[in-house]
Amino acid sequence: MQGLNLNELIFIGLGLNDEKGISINGMEETKTADYVFMELYTSLMPDLNVQRFEALCGKQVHVVSRRELEEENGIAVLEAAKKGKTVFLVPGEPFIATTHVTLRIDAEKLGVKTRIVHGASIISAIISLSGLHNYKFGKTVTIPFPENFSETPYNVIAQNKKFGSHTLCLLDLKATEKQFLSINQAVALLSEVEKKKKEGVITLGTAAVGVARAGSKKPTLKADFVKNLGTFDFGEPPYSLIFPGDMHFMEVEALIAFAGAPSDFRRLAR
Amino acid sequence: MQGLNLNELIFIGLGLNDEKGISINGMEETKTADYVFMELYTSLMPDLNVQRFEALCGKQVHVVSRRELEEENGIAVLEAAKKGKTVFLVPGEPFIATTHVTLRIDAEKLGVKTRIVHGASIISAIISLSGLHNYKFGKTVTIPFPENFSETPYNVIAQNKKFGSHTLCLLDLKATEKQFLSINQAVALLSEVEKKKKEGVITLGTAAVGVARAGSKKPTLKADFVKNLGTFDFGEPPYSLIFPGDMHFMEVEALIAFAGAPSDFRRLAR
Repeated sequence: MQGLNLNELIFIGLGLNDEKGISINGMEETKTADYVFMELYTSLMPDLNVQRFEALCGKQVHVVSRRELEEENGIAVLEAAKKGKTVFLVPGEPFIATTHVTLRIDAEKLGVKTRIVHGASIISAIISLSGLHNYKFGKTVTIPFPENFSETPYNVIAQNKKFGSHTLCLLDLKATEKQFLSINQAVALLSEVEKKKKEGVITLGTAAVGVARAGSKKPTLKADFVKNLGTFDFGEPPYSLIFPGDMHFMEVEALIAFAGAPSDFRRLAR
Repeated sequence: MQGLNLNELIFIGLGLNDEKGISINGMEETKTADYVFMELYTSLMPDLNVQRFEALCGKQVHVVSRRELEEENGIAVLEAAKKGKTVFLVPGEPFIATTHVTLRIDAEKLGVKTRIVHGASIISAIISLSGLHNYKFGKTVTIPFPENFSETPYNVIAQNKKFGSHTLCLLDLKATEKQFLSINQAVALLSEVEKKKKEGVITLGTAAVGVARAGSKKPTLKADFVKNLGTFDFGEPPYSLIFPGDMHFMEVEALIAFAGAPSDFRRLAR
């Protein structure tokens, strides 16, 4: 298969949801690659089908596991990249999950040239869907499953709010095991910390925006006060949650128009 | 042209750099649209050619100006969306620039259904290229041209650093007039504020990462101390700048491998 191509390792973002979330540039690079690898464990792409992707790109796709990448240091990928044009396909944008930075460093140390073909990221998709202003988001945080839970997410939300900033919370998932922290669970975990710390960060009257299936054809958004959000049915995963800081009136209008916020939200505008 | 399509308004991200930065889903929606609009003033796509885009999608593309969208409230787009399937193409991810949120709200108020097909965003591309950890970035800030300059960017960087967070600075641009704030100019503007405020936020020994042409086939990255960055030639625009907060040693290694950071950077790792 290898031939006229130079050896290199191209990290390509699959974008969101399905096999057509990838950019045209990304697909063209894949079509001309000697070796095609894909990982599907750092994020969920609900409607991606590997066979359909293979039909689109005309190549055999090697789906690599967390074990192969993290315990075996991606040696199969690196070996291929020493021989020919190799693409490594990653859900969303390649390095938004920090997992693959080591693989890129290792390749460069072996003298393999690397580059990136970017894809739509879940982070910018969620912000875009909400209509909240991107430049008003502070640090992003992941809310882990109960067994790994700590006070960190609460503290990040508190710190962001102090400066009027919004917080995007990604809810933990094990994509291959189909386990997903739900929005209700995340709110309950944060409320437990509130009971202890009593800083008024997550109360029944706190505004929040739940987002399910960002990037899919039918995302579900619901903005409401925490006391009402617990009973809302968000449907299928993956899930995320935004805790807005200070909101401009246009941001409130966006939440009313796109996320079914109650008109009460208007009194939150500053 | 209108026919079997329902009327709706789809905001589609063009992704980065050229006419093939768009996702396959985005291109397929465009091919089946009754009306195709595009704006090219909120961000620069250096290698996008409208004629080549028209050839790819097989549709006539109406490029709309800032005046038509902001002063005339996008009435041409809304009128089309009342009649048939209308797509509105935006550089990067549609709502990362906050400009178009109003248009989406107006459409929904007129009873026109809206949705989003996401694209790669300049924000996640820059973070991805740097190898710095996404969850350690605080608020993003735009550094404006000298005539609009204020202390805000300095204050945002200072506030982020206080919590160990990185700051992504987008450098202002007027895409249609081909005016771009350079990395040298941005550093000089911030240094002026430093002279006044003396908080030690931007000194000659401060680490920074300059990025040019993120999302293109040949981006330029250079990590160095501020005193050395001023003479570096970044080539063509657009430009951005990262001021790292506390760095994990893997982040430092990434800057050395991908952004030519001097080995001195290793003493910055925490």
